[in-house]
Amino acid sequence: MTYCVGLLLNEGLVFASDTRTNAGVDQVAIVPKMHIFEVKNKRVIVILTAGNLAITQSVVNALKANTLKKGKTKHINNVSSMFDVAALVGEEMRLAYERDAKHLKSQNIEFNATILVGGQIKGEKPRLFNVYAAGNFIETCPETPYFQIGETKYGKPIIDRVVKHDSKMMDVVKCLLVSFDSTIRSNISVAAPIDLLLYKINSFSSKNKKRITDNDPYFIQLRQEWSAGLKKVFTGLKNPNWF
Amino acid sequence: MTYCVGLLLNEGLVFASDTRTNAGVDQVAIVPKMHIFEVKNKRVIVILTAGNLAITQSVVNALKANTLKKGKTKHINNVSSMFDVAALVGEEMRLAYERDAKHLKSQNIEFNATILVGGQIKGEKPRLFNVYAAGNFIETCPETPYFQIGETKYGKPIIDRVVKHDSKMMDVVKCLLVSFDSTIRSNISVAAPIDLLLYKINSFSSKNKKRITDNDPYFIQLRQEWSAGLKKVFTGLKNPNWF
Repeated sequence: MTYCVGLLLNEGLVFASDTRTNAGVDQVAIVPKMHIFEVKNKRVIVILTAGNLAITQSVVNALKANTLKKGKTKHINNVSSMFDVAALVGEEMRLAYERDAKHLKSQNIEFNATILVGGQIKGEKPRLFNVYAAGNFIETCPETPYFQIGETKYGKPIIDRVVKHDSKMMDVVKCLLVSFDSTIRSNISVAAPIDLLLYKINSFSSKNKKRITDNDPYFIQLRQEWSAGLKKVFTGLKNPNWF
Repeated sequence: MTYCVGLLLNEGLVFASDTRTNAGVDQVAIVPKMHIFEVKNKRVIVILTAGNLAITQSVVNALKANTLKKGKTKHINNVSSMFDVAALVGEEMRLAYERDAKHLKSQNIEFNATILVGGQIKGEKPRLFNVYAAGNFIETCPETPYFQIGETKYGKPIIDRVVKHDSKMMDVVKCLLVSFDSTIRSNISVAAPIDLLLYKINSFSSKNKKRITDNDPYFIQLRQEWSAGLKKVFTGLKNPNWF
């Protein structure tokens, strides 16, 4: 499985993805699920993937290959809006479906893939989309400024409690790390290292990125303090006197 | 959907279930998912159900009807161990499958049901089982003293952090209410009132039960204090200085 989150804030975009992939429990490996398309000072586009790894890798591969093809009129590095970028991702998802779905079905495997794509193209504000396996997609709004894909449920409550469209970017990073910690504790199909990317509005740069390992001193401290803090709050709550 | 939890502690058993049922979003109703079989001073058996309501209601109905049938040699009120009780629940699940599964399949509906069954029969310690749709079942152990069924993921992290086999019963009740609160906030298919039952070891009585509504003063206070406490701990955590 996988856990990825993308958020659109007033300050810009935050992306985080785990790196565990597994086929059953026998085949567990580290694979990055974050892919960056950047044209210096013009556009930064970030893709996070969940679902069948062969499908999502083939989609990302096609998106990359298209940028290099001579005569390819429309690709991720030249279309003029993030909406068009999401449409390109959707198109590649549909091509993958046409090519793979019947073969997967013959092995009783569902065509299962979801892709978050966000970023900023000069002339537009930053935008964030969620592209489904059918190639259709939705966009965030101020009321719901984030998307999760993969193993989303364990880490959702803390995001729901804390994150707003106007939250400070580094508070959101802290919240995401708590969200990943909750998920990783309860589900072995999600694991560190966590890939993190902060895109600051109008920066047109992807330089603020970091791979956070289990041994990262900040992540260790955060996990310990959060766990101790939760237990302290929990212990401080009065028990009911019902029985 | 549904959210139910059963726990086996040193002090006894704790059961909690929500009461929301829905067929799509158009048909939402309150239905209890907790069923009690009691033979005074001899046995208390509690059943929590998740999944297709028609299936689980038919299983519970058959278990009840069997206790009244003349000449029925084995039923939930007379078998001599909780293991045998779980086997009876499994048998009824299999009979429901044989009767219903093909008809459900013709409407593209999966045969989907899970049942927790726990309690104490005189001569035995309290025991707790999880019966699957296939009629097979597993039992708790001190290392993993609880089962969840239904929408389990939102509320799992707090249970994983707090509950042990030797936790105090009222601490566990408090933890379950926090777990239900997290689930209810993030998923509209789970909702109060919550049915709660505490079975104290060797009591052979089901008297400690309560229906907790959204307006319950303790539940309101717990939710407010937990939310405020979480936010305080979260705010107190240092932000990373990575970028």
